Amino acid sequence: MMKAQKDFDIHAVLALDEDEILKSISIDFVVIGFHDKNLKVLLNRFKYFDTWILPGGFVLKDESIDDAAYRILKTRTGLDDDIFLKEFHTFGDYGRNTTKEVKKALRRYNIPESEIQRHWIHKRFISIAHYALVDYTKVEICNTEDDQSQWFDIDQIPSPLFADHNRILEVGLETIREQLNSIPIDCSLLPEIFTMSELRSIYETIMGAKLDRRNFQKSILQTGYVIQHRETKGKNSYKPTKLYSFDKEKYQKALDNDTLYRVTKPQIN
Amino acid sequence: MMKAQKDFDIHAVLALDEDEILKSISIDFVVIGFHDKNLKVLLNRFKYFDTWILPGGFVLKDESIDDAAYRILKTRTGLDDDIFLKEFHTFGDYGRNTTKEVKKALRRYNIPESEIQRHWIHKRFISIAHYALVDYTKVEICNTEDDQSQWFDIDQIPSPLFADHNRILEVGLETIREQLNSIPIDCSLLPEIFTMSELRSIYETIMGAKLDRRNFQKSILQTGYVIQHRETKGKNSYKPTKLYSFDKEKYQKALDNDTLYRVTKPQIN
Repeated sequence: MMKAQKDFDIHAVLALDEDEILKSISIDFVVIGFHDKNLKVLLNRFKYFDTWILPGGFVLKDESIDDAAYRILKTRTGLDDDIFLKEFHTFGDYGRNTTKEVKKALRRYNIPESEIQRHWIHKRFISIAHYALVDYTKVEICNTEDDQSQWFDIDQIPSPLFADHNRILEVGLETIREQLNSIPIDCSLLPEIFTMSELRSIYETIMGAKLDRRNFQKSILQTGYVIQHRETKGKNSYKPTKLYSFDKEKYQKALDNDTLYRVTKPQIN
Repeated sequence: MMKAQKDFDIHAVLALDEDEILKSISIDFVVIGFHDKNLKVLLNRFKYFDTWILPGGFVLKDESIDDAAYRILKTRTGLDDDIFLKEFHTFGDYGRNTTKEVKKALRRYNIPESEIQRHWIHKRFISIAHYALVDYTKVEICNTEDDQSQWFDIDQIPSPLFADHNRILEVGLETIREQLNSIPIDCSLLPEIFTMSELRSIYETIMGAKLDRRNFQKSILQTGYVIQHRETKGKNSYKPTKLYSFDKEKYQKALDNDTLYRVTKPQIN
């Protein structure tokens, strides 16, 4: 069995001793990808749970939270460093207690009642929530019989998700919106070569508003970090689509200087 | 003994059973006040510790993190709601382990060695760091023989502080700087009536740069939320100092609309 599978096999998790993890703490992820002009969110489902759940995991006893975050994301996406990862909030309401929901699922797994009662997994956890921006085309989802991952369009997220995960997702998206100017949103989400309308779609989806096609193109080319290529898509058609890529050095400079393209007020088409 | 004292009496903390708190989690605070044209940071010192420490505490087993944060701050400052409080980062490096430092202090308190060895307080904790903006004139510090609090000028912070607290403070101040436009920095830090130069000092200290006096006054009055009063300070002097206050309603509106005064690029005088 692959490591990526083993790490998230529910039985492997249940077999973890409480002393092997940092108590009371879980990490949950809002993983954002971009495909077919839509922002996508990666969700997870364990066989005997009633709801979809944000990908997540636990911190090992001797592990930094940052290291745990990259480790967990790797098992979920196959990605190593090619991820923009940021902690955005800690969810610590007492009301987010998930004892009932977890115990119900454990019974369906035929775990003996005595073992369920003393297991740490249904205790109170706080969640250190991170968002991750990933290149959709590079993600390798690894499904097992017990554990399925799936991309959802951002406007088609199942509700309710597990526990307070709808709220975590909402706060994550708000944060990305607020931080548009200081995170490499487009650079992380797009493959190396992209079209102008793909680039525009990212901003439109995050801002929840249509942007004027020509104004957008003008502003984005003025930044200096988007390069137009000679090659086009659909060479034989009447009007071929131009292709672009990022000048990574100039992009990084704009990021450092806080001069990334930013939609401040949504323009209506 | 007052509750405020009792909560932070080191012996009361040591007497807490591990099951009464949320394991592995502490909350630490960057408490910022403003006095005498200087930003001040509230630090804490326990009798037998070698270093100053950021004010902090633990989360009770059945308590939300938010509730715990307000409860701890109240015991430290006497303030209830009159606080702008925001979580900014979770510090979870494995290297922030404080076992050695804590054990050394416990020995000085003459705690028996067997009790020290099995105590939870020197285990690994992650810190959910918050910053708090408070009105300096309203803070009531409550000192005991074992536990002293003191304001420090922001450019005279002792180093090293306990564990990674210099780093927590640094990240807290960076975050406040980044969020200048979306938090009520001046409104939280200043008393009801203030002078223009006090208001300017807040921005100068946070940005670490001198601002042009006249440009600042012009820009800040253009926002519409700073009201000039008829009364002045030092009525009999040749040039009396004008007094100001905030129009709270307009201030809130500017906060909501993201149009608070903001120094984007430091201007040099």
